[in-house]
Amino acid sequence: MKDRIYLFDTTLRDGQQTPGIDFSVEDKIAIATMLDEFGLDYIEGGYPGANPTDTAFFNEKRTRNASFVAFGMTKRAGVSASNDPGLTGLLQAQSDAVCLVAKSWDYHVKVALGCSNEENLESISESVKAVVAAGKEAMVDCEHFFDGYKANPEYALACARAAYDAGARWVVLCDTNGGTQPPEVRDIVGAVIAAGVPGHGLGIHAHNDTGQAVANSLAAVEAGVRQIQGTLNGIGERCGNANLVTLIPTLALKETYSSRFTTAIDPERLLNLTRLSHAFDELLNRSPDHQLPYVGASAFATKAGIHASALLKDPRTYEHVTPESVGNFRKVMVSDQGGKANFINALKRRGIEVGKDDPKLDRLISLVKEREASGYAYEGADASFELLARRTLGTIPEFFSVEGFRVMVERRFDSHGKVKIVSEAVVKLGVDGQTIMSVAEGDGPVNALDLALRKDFGKYQHEIDDLVLADFKVRILNGGTEAITRVLIESTDSDGVRWWTVGVSENIIDASFQALMDSVIYKLMKNRQLAGKIAAE
Amino acid sequence: MKDRIYLFDTTLRDGQQTPGIDFSVEDKIAIATMLDEFGLDYIEGGYPGANPTDTAFFNEKRTRNASFVAFGMTKRAGVSASNDPGLTGLLQAQSDAVCLVAKSWDYHVKVALGCSNEENLESISESVKAVVAAGKEAMVDCEHFFDGYKANPEYALACARAAYDAGARWVVLCDTNGGTQPPEVRDIVGAVIAAGVPGHGLGIHAHNDTGQAVANSLAAVEAGVRQIQGTLNGIGERCGNANLVTLIPTLALKETYSSRFTTAIDPERLLNLTRLSHAFDELLNRSPDHQLPYVGASAFATKAGIHASALLKDPRTYEHVTPESVGNFRKVMVSDQGGKANFINALKRRGIEVGKDDPKLDRLISLVKEREASGYAYEGADASFELLARRTLGTIPEFFSVEGFRVMVERRFDSHGKVKIVSEAVVKLGVDGQTIMSVAEGDGPVNALDLALRKDFGKYQHEIDDLVLADFKVRILNGGTEAITRVLIESTDSDGVRWWTVGVSENIIDASFQALMDSVIYKLMKNRQLAGKIAAE
Repeated sequence: MKDRIYLFDTTLRDGQQTPGIDFSVEDKIAIATMLDEFGLDYIEGGYPGANPTDTAFFNEKRTRNASFVAFGMTKRAGVSASNDPGLTGLLQAQSDAVCLVAKSWDYHVKVALGCSNEENLESISESVKAVVAAGKEAMVDCEHFFDGYKANPEYALACARAAYDAGARWVVLCDTNGGTQPPEVRDIVGAVIAAGVPGHGLGIHAHNDTGQAVANSLAAVEAGVRQIQGTLNGIGERCGNANLVTLIPTLALKETYSSRFTTAIDPERLLNLTRLSHAFDELLNRSPDHQLPYVGASAFATKAGIHASALLKDPRTYEHVTPESVGNFRKVMVSDQGGKANFINALKRRGIEVGKDDPKLDRLISLVKEREASGYAYEGADASFELLARRTLGTIPEFFSVEGFRVMVERRFDSHGKVKIVSEAVVKLGVDGQTIMSVAEGDGPVNALDLALRKDFGKYQHEIDDLVLADFKVRILNGGTEAITRVLIESTDSDGVRWWTVGVSENIIDASFQALMDSVIYKLMKNRQLAGKIAAE
Repeated sequence: MKDRIYLFDTTLRDGQQTPGIDFSVEDKIAIATMLDEFGLDYIEGGYPGANPTDTAFFNEKRTRNASFVAFGMTKRAGVSASNDPGLTGLLQAQSDAVCLVAKSWDYHVKVALGCSNEENLESISESVKAVVAAGKEAMVDCEHFFDGYKANPEYALACARAAYDAGARWVVLCDTNGGTQPPEVRDIVGAVIAAGVPGHGLGIHAHNDTGQAVANSLAAVEAGVRQIQGTLNGIGERCGNANLVTLIPTLALKETYSSRFTTAIDPERLLNLTRLSHAFDELLNRSPDHQLPYVGASAFATKAGIHASALLKDPRTYEHVTPESVGNFRKVMVSDQGGKANFINALKRRGIEVGKDDPKLDRLISLVKEREASGYAYEGADASFELLARRTLGTIPEFFSVEGFRVMVERRFDSHGKVKIVSEAVVKLGVDGQTIMSVAEGDGPVNALDLALRKDFGKYQHEIDDLVLADFKVRILNGGTEAITRVLIESTDSDGVRWWTVGVSENIIDASFQALMDSVIYKLMKNRQLAGKIAAE
């Protein structure tokens, strides 16, 4: 019989403290829905009464399955629970549960609350009773619990006891400043249980200020705690909160824990983890961290030659879990360091068969190394790599020729004396022996070039109508304005396929043009392969 | 008497496995110097013989104080150490120590090496003896040690013993796949010590695949290990290696460890930690992770709310260590009450005095917020911030006016049928009521614009002759080719002063122009302030 670990998400409350992150009501609704569908136990929505957004968000219950939690303060000293406007407002918010934050470090009781230790204990106890009386599940976040315990163990324990004895379902031990180390967490949790608050009523709220939020959460679980509080992708104040996206698969897939514990996230739900993590970054409009455990684009990527060859023999030898188990995938990369095995595998995945001793393969490898030395990065540009490979190994039809382009950016004053910036591009293509000239204006030179390029491809036009540029990245490879520029472009189409192309030049416009061209040619080639497959069926 | 923990940096070897990172010889020399000056014990430079870069890097010793380490493989089975070209090459590389990677999981011995378990033990032992005979310190990275131990404890232990008994100074236990959990690390390290390899001869090499690289390293130290391997900012294959930038301050500042252990990084050296971490990201041309423990821009940042006001009362209440101890600083963000004071200080640092209640200050604050919301980043662009502040608060002379510019990029075939790309810029300035038009060609549009802009400033020309553009950074703020572009330019002059300016536009050329203009205006203003100072003396 395994113990159940309860997962408590505070992305919408503590996550909101992240510098640079401010959720709108719509954001909160979208995120709560994502979390609810993923299957977490508790979703903390925010602090109704503290700001208009959170107050509006708590106008209605926002979860179907998860328990919807409102965060707030215990009653002030000197007034009864029923006469504290903050607390009564909190109880009126639409929520299944209420998480009260309470001081448990006597120093803070004095400095921040300015009341006596006894008054604080009474506030905790009366506030919890009020939550229970309102028919809601009560939890208490014991703020600064670990630092408080180090300063005054008796008082910290008294706060935890006060919350539990008053009827709190969960007493959550918070490492508010994030400086506590795993051995201390183990010892202090043990002391709390010894003092009479059972593990099945204890939670852990860890911060990542020493990179130990995940380790502290698991150390607390080992010591008996049964609720973990964390956030999506570890966002949160300062260095962030415990990352649920890391903790959940570890609890599910690591024998040390999976042999003793279960969570609401079964293997089937775990398959959605990578998508959840990336969707959240999308919503934050930031590019996902490639090195994030389990879900990062690099989490199952291999670069080194020796590793790659062993990986091909048996993935288990270099993967601690299967990428599929968390909805991620294996990636063996082409790069300066890659050995022959990398290349053969990379080509095979693209349906290109080549013999280990084929001299064309050596030519391709040296070509890739040479181009990467000059600034190309095929690691991140699968489509450009495939085009280079097919050009070197086999053949791709020369769909069209580029006779040239001209891009003009002008800044001047218009007739009303307002600054006006115009970007115009002219592209000259050769299709079927005839020249097609197109011109377009755009928001910037690259946009204008893109619009002009795709305006008229003659007989191919209908084939690229559904080509969409999803992302555009620029990297300056060395200082100064004479720098070499690398442009990466992500494209997608109506089949939902995504591909990356790269261009490198001392001229940012030309680098962009190269990447745009590769994207179009890849699309045309892809269409033909698809057509071939269909014909073959 | 405290135990010494030895710090081993593998940024230049395992860090090189990071997807997207490829060091040139110059990069490696710069990084080795940074690490050596910071004061680490061991710096692993790479794998001489594996690629031209590493071979060239080991042409000479690259460290003054730290032990310079070459990485390589143990001898192949079936040949003697002296007849193994790989090993003999490795011994000829200029290094103080050699770190040999050895299989310690019998499964890998079979699959990857294809030799017998006994042959592998003999390779370890003979190779270590060869390193010692060459007068170098020998270390052995026991690859897959923890997974190997789980599969076949006797054999894993035999490998560790073989290395130690043959004279290895360090036997390094590697969690190559990164899936091992802290409790397992504690138990397995205990078993190794029980098997006769003393803790003072053991090292830990952890990967971050479950977000536990730091926790596993410290768990190993608790269990007796005395060497930690890690990288700068935690770069490394897949999810990265143990982050030394996190581990070092934890060992130095957290009583749990500092009461029992010492490292080469004393409190004084620790002051350089934040600079080291950021300088490394600069070298990688990537923006530092704001949430990185200890050194991140947000590590000591507080947003509006209860915390901010309590923080002002007594920082200790919300900080686990002082920001100064690691060379970082406290940041109470512009969006809250403490922000106004911060603003006033930021201005004071630039010699701009402004009253707390001056309405112009509120206008500046809202202007900065508004512009930062639209993509400007004044944190990284001091000079542009100062210009904005002086324009809003006081006055800067209108040195000249910009009537407009025109930039043209053309790609065509020259008379020999070779592709030719021309970038030309025309700039129209108004100085002293007269119009100055300049034209220039450049390597790219921004370079052409820069050359044309600075070609003729009329009476100011002599003042900007010593203006040099030191760096140029481009960041795309949102996807697609219609994206908003932010350009950061670093300038310097013969006084050795450096300043950053920023430009934001949907048009990359115009964004660059804004940053170039700010740089020139800042230079002219700076000249006058200097002149003023000199006149005042």
